[in-house]
Amino acid sequence: MAELRLRALRGIGEIRPGERLGEVLTDALRHNDVVLRDHDVVAVCQKVVSKSENRYRELADETPTPKAVELAAICGKDARYVEVVLQQATDVVRCSRGVLIVRHKLGFVVANAGVDQSNIERGDERVLLLPEDPDASAERLRVHIEARHGVSVGVVVTDSFGRAWRKGVIGVALGCAGLQSLRDRRGERDRQGRELRITEVALGDQIASAATLVMGEADEGLPMVVISGLAAEAFDGHEPATALIRPAREDLFL
Amino acid sequence: MAELRLRALRGIGEIRPGERLGEVLTDALRHNDVVLRDHDVVAVCQKVVSKSENRYRELADETPTPKAVELAAICGKDARYVEVVLQQATDVVRCSRGVLIVRHKLGFVVANAGVDQSNIERGDERVLLLPEDPDASAERLRVHIEARHGVSVGVVVTDSFGRAWRKGVIGVALGCAGLQSLRDRRGERDRQGRELRITEVALGDQIASAATLVMGEADEGLPMVVISGLAAEAFDGHEPATALIRPAREDLFL
Repeated sequence: MAELRLRALRGIGEIRPGERLGEVLTDALRHNDVVLRDHDVVAVCQKVVSKSENRYRELADETPTPKAVELAAICGKDARYVEVVLQQATDVVRCSRGVLIVRHKLGFVVANAGVDQSNIERGDERVLLLPEDPDASAERLRVHIEARHGVSVGVVVTDSFGRAWRKGVIGVALGCAGLQSLRDRRGERDRQGRELRITEVALGDQIASAATLVMGEADEGLPMVVISGLAAEAFDGHEPATALIRPAREDLFL
Repeated sequence: MAELRLRALRGIGEIRPGERLGEVLTDALRHNDVVLRDHDVVAVCQKVVSKSENRYRELADETPTPKAVELAAICGKDARYVEVVLQQATDVVRCSRGVLIVRHKLGFVVANAGVDQSNIERGDERVLLLPEDPDASAERLRVHIEARHGVSVGVVVTDSFGRAWRKGVIGVALGCAGLQSLRDRRGERDRQGRELRITEVALGDQIASAATLVMGEADEGLPMVVISGLAAEAFDGHEPATALIRPAREDLFL
């Protein structure tokens, strides 16, 4: 029996700007009696990464451009919020009532450039950007784990994105270190010796979706998950999460 | 600690047309010493479902229409194969060298209408269609499990699809029974009492991606997976996998 085990760590509080996620993880592992092993993967919710990196922006500091004002009128969002979204974006993919989908400057196509405004409802005018370089955030945590725990693990920074054709959000890998986020299986054969029909597997996104199931989806519910039992081949080389981004000109589905 | 456990059952052989998947599962559970519990989910790879339902088609029986011949010339595939794909499709989304993406009559946007041609390379001219009604296939297996094992479980029929914007395939739910494939979280609040930012979660797809990780992605490697530890709320009501399909006219991303 092949077995995969996902353990979401309890007891992780609100993350403050400047707080080191490596230390938060180390404490949470101890608190939950979890020992990391080689070839485990640690999945971390984007939001705690952004908070530790102090990716807050104050809407009061923003002066919307005419383009932000125009789009805000169409989608019905705060023009200062739209301004922050546009600063994070290279293109607007779709703008309509309640909807603002962009290509983030990191390459991801995502609603509102992933800029979180969930604080606004309670009078806090800070919004939260995605991490500046999620692959680098993942790599920093991986290096910390290797140094502190003496094990070689993968790290995935997860988020939840909507997508074309299908309803509902799913987990995606925003950042990845220490494993192949995109696994090229060309040349591999199945047990009948035939070449595999499927040649590229988005391992990072599948790991993120699995982790999101146990994070409970609630913002910051259980933001760190330890995944054990992935096939060793996943760790044959490193592919950052940027490998998962299909450049617009190569898109097969559009 | 919240924990999710995925166990892929070993020892499942090639599935023959007419073979009952419920019996295959029952035997495999015994062989692997796995006992199903209420609120477990059984994930089953599409290919074994299609085989048990004898969804084979002989290319020799097909006479391509002029449209199939024309598209075959563009994408460089066998015109009889393209004919079978078109019979399963309502629209062609994209046709270019090596690429034929359609909207399947079940609603999914998928390469080659999910018609598998991996046998062709070894001289077998049979192709394999998706199950005729994957939600019904899932429900039949769920009913069998309830009757035979006395437990109330979810069933997900999984496949691997490519997608817009991102590289690599991920697991998706083709069929679903006994749980909410699409979970509506409107009105729910996080632990600070704020309304959740994300309101619809594609639980079925996330479960399929998690299961695919342990199926080993290889065709028929380990086609049945038992998933334990999902939140009980996932089973508050039933949503078939068709609930995950976004009608083209409502698509936000395109």
